[in-house]
Amino acid sequence: MPASPIRKLSPFATQAKKEGKKVYHLNIGQPDIATPEGMLNAIKNIDFNVWAYTESEGTLSYRTKLTEYYNKLGYNITPEDILVTLGGSEAITIAMQTCVNEGDEIIIPEPFYANYNGFACMSNVVVKPILSYIENGFALPPVAEFEKLISPKTKGIMICNPNNPTGYLYSREEIVALKELCLKYDLFLFCDEAYREFCYEGAAFISPMQLDGLDEHVVVIDTVSKRYSACGARLGCMITKNKEVIKSALKFAQVRLSPGLVEQIAGTAAVDTPDSYFEAVNTEYTLRRNTLVSRLNAIDGVFCPNPGGAFYVVAKLPIDDADAFCQWILEKFDHDGGTVMMAPATGFYSTPGSGKQEVRMAYVINIDDLNKAMDCLTVALQQYPGKTS
Amino acid sequence: MPASPIRKLSPFATQAKKEGKKVYHLNIGQPDIATPEGMLNAIKNIDFNVWAYTESEGTLSYRTKLTEYYNKLGYNITPEDILVTLGGSEAITIAMQTCVNEGDEIIIPEPFYANYNGFACMSNVVVKPILSYIENGFALPPVAEFEKLISPKTKGIMICNPNNPTGYLYSREEIVALKELCLKYDLFLFCDEAYREFCYEGAAFISPMQLDGLDEHVVVIDTVSKRYSACGARLGCMITKNKEVIKSALKFAQVRLSPGLVEQIAGTAAVDTPDSYFEAVNTEYTLRRNTLVSRLNAIDGVFCPNPGGAFYVVAKLPIDDADAFCQWILEKFDHDGGTVMMAPATGFYSTPGSGKQEVRMAYVINIDDLNKAMDCLTVALQQYPGKTS
Ligand SMILES: Cc1ncc(COP(=O)(O)O)c(C=O)c1O
Ligand SMILES: Cc1ncc(COP(=O)(O)O)c(C=O)c1O
Repeated sequence: MPASPIRKLSPFATQAKKEGKKVYHLNIGQPDIATPEGMLNAIKNIDFNVWAYTESEGTLSYRTKLTEYYNKLGYNITPEDILVTLGGSEAITIAMQTCVNEGDEIIIPEPFYANYNGFACMSNVVVKPILSYIENGFALPPVAEFEKLISPKTKGIMICNPNNPTGYLYSREEIVALKELCLKYDLFLFCDEAYREFCYEGAAFISPMQLDGLDEHVVVIDTVSKRYSACGARLGCMITKNKEVIKSALKFAQVRLSPGLVEQIAGTAAVDTPDSYFEAVNTEYTLRRNTLVSRLNAIDGVFCPNPGGAFYVVAKLPIDDADAFCQWILEKFDHDGGTVMMAPATGFYSTPGSGKQEVRMAYVINIDDLNKAMDCLTVALQQYPGKTS
Repeated sequence: MPASPIRKLSPFATQAKKEGKKVYHLNIGQPDIATPEGMLNAIKNIDFNVWAYTESEGTLSYRTKLTEYYNKLGYNITPEDILVTLGGSEAITIAMQTCVNEGDEIIIPEPFYANYNGFACMSNVVVKPILSYIENGFALPPVAEFEKLISPKTKGIMICNPNNPTGYLYSREEIVALKELCLKYDLFLFCDEAYREFCYEGAAFISPMQLDGLDEHVVVIDTVSKRYSACGARLGCMITKNKEVIKSALKFAQVRLSPGLVEQIAGTAAVDTPDSYFEAVNTEYTLRRNTLVSRLNAIDGVFCPNPGGAFYVVAKLPIDDADAFCQWILEKFDHDGGTVMMAPATGFYSTPGSGKQEVRMAYVINIDDLNKAMDCLTVALQQYPGKTS
């Protein structure tokens, strides 16, 4: 079981903190955005006396409320198509355990969310990575590349849209290409939509759930973690119109009995979060993304695509080794008493040697700090002994 | 993945409800007892703005508070020995995944909590059941029986104390016997203590955590579900003084990121639940157990041992087939417009054919209803066509 790259650097961060440095945390996906008031109030207003189990699939009232949210997006689902889970994390595990037999394979464009490896490992699923490239902003690899990897063991393709770590937002054409591929080879299309709400400059979010003829193939992974900045709720869901899949997923869910009661109450309230909340969040993230991307590209030798969604970027730096650099900047460097913590992109690639010059940054800190972090990075790249250009 | 026996009968219950029968639910482990006020108030008083992830191992403050609770019981642990989990359920999964390699075996006295099968199945762990018998109240099988099953593949023994489904409370001698067995063969001793708080008539609860010389071998599974009637909190923990185990368990925990934040806040408050709460609960359960056991044994041909803990009993009925009987009593029977839902004990045995005359009942309903349920059962056993004696 590989350690999560998010945590890999923690000992150095502790060291940096001990030395009194201010550490700008661009390494983790924990937003600083406030959770919607309606959701927090729902917690404060609980009125049960017995903190009881709920149905293993989630309460009917929460699942019904969720359909309201999803059907506005054109998913055209019923409460029976939803399995409420303990975070998106559990939805991924259950989806893999349900749809993929031991030793069978799923194809995932890389770089990808590193914990997919852990979930696959726990479910005895083999991940076949397929490289996407920073040069074209991490667009979907060509269909021909997928076809090269498809074998009788291939059971599905997994994407994350918008993407963690790249921020890439898949186009309608790309989603349609995946649809055709999945129909042609009868593969599941697992779509992790944890960052659905974060699409910038009016770019359209396209889900395979919105496409016709794919009902038996699509399994959506979702979570309230990022949408409502409610990561600590551990509330997610798996959605599919495939009756067989939802039925056997429920058996896995029954073993662990129940998702959280308070969370489902809060999640129900969250569906009524006013648009103004998302508009404000969107404005803030757009500003941060623009700041981060332009500051990065202004540094000599740095290249950072401008991603359409999520709250991450992957940037290519003029360095020999992202792991060494991320450690060096934390341990050996400071600028005005501060430094930056980033996630080396190597942790998001399975193909050995990939991502050695890349880092992932999450813009989950305020603009001021983001600018200071970029000041640090600019100076650090001038001083770093392992510079390549 | 076998369906949980708890849920197996649900369609019949729905049917019974439709027909307007009052169904006395003795089939599930959801207590009707109120959650401690301090715990509920902690939820109502949350004062964070961002519902954030916590450390994967649980917050230091919750783990520290937990040591207070455990060290009063003589566990002699530090916060580093605790991994906070999403329910006892997740603690079981993580314990198995951490300690037992694929294809390796654990021995569990049966009847046992049926979901152990599901967890084992998901972790590719092989369960070797060892029969315990209603005639001696489901006491620990003799050491010689365990030794017959021990092979190079055996990695541990798992017990649940007090037991679900039997209510059996293991004696100090039995725990010591297990200790010696685990030391002799270098096995893990997994101890599920979900029902620790429920021991009747002053009977002592003994944990292997309290014994010397077993630090490397004991892994305790715990949960707030039953202790504080907080099943919907999905808050548990795994405890071990084995540094290797806790370290690799953390890697599994990191993949799913975090336990719940609100729950850990509530769980912290719960540790200060006054003794009077437990005394009242204990008094109530003792009364219910006494009522249930004496009503059962008063029925012709029924035998029910008087268990020392938990809130379950397993009773032997004069019937041909517990599954058929539990279905019949729900579907075809009523007495004064009511009937009883019980869990056939077959679901708690792995050995084929075992438990066919046994049912599990949870005394999680009030005395009045419990008496009415027993009235139903008494009449039902007179009318049941599959009666054996
Ligand atoms: C792409 C992606 N999927 C799933 C998750 C899991 O989120 P959670 O378990 O908090 O719902 C994350 C968390 O960072 C993520 O980035
Ligand atoms: C013996 C035993 N262990 C573990 C659990 C799991 O409880 P939870 O996941 O709610 O903590 C239960 C629940 O009924 C149980 O009976």
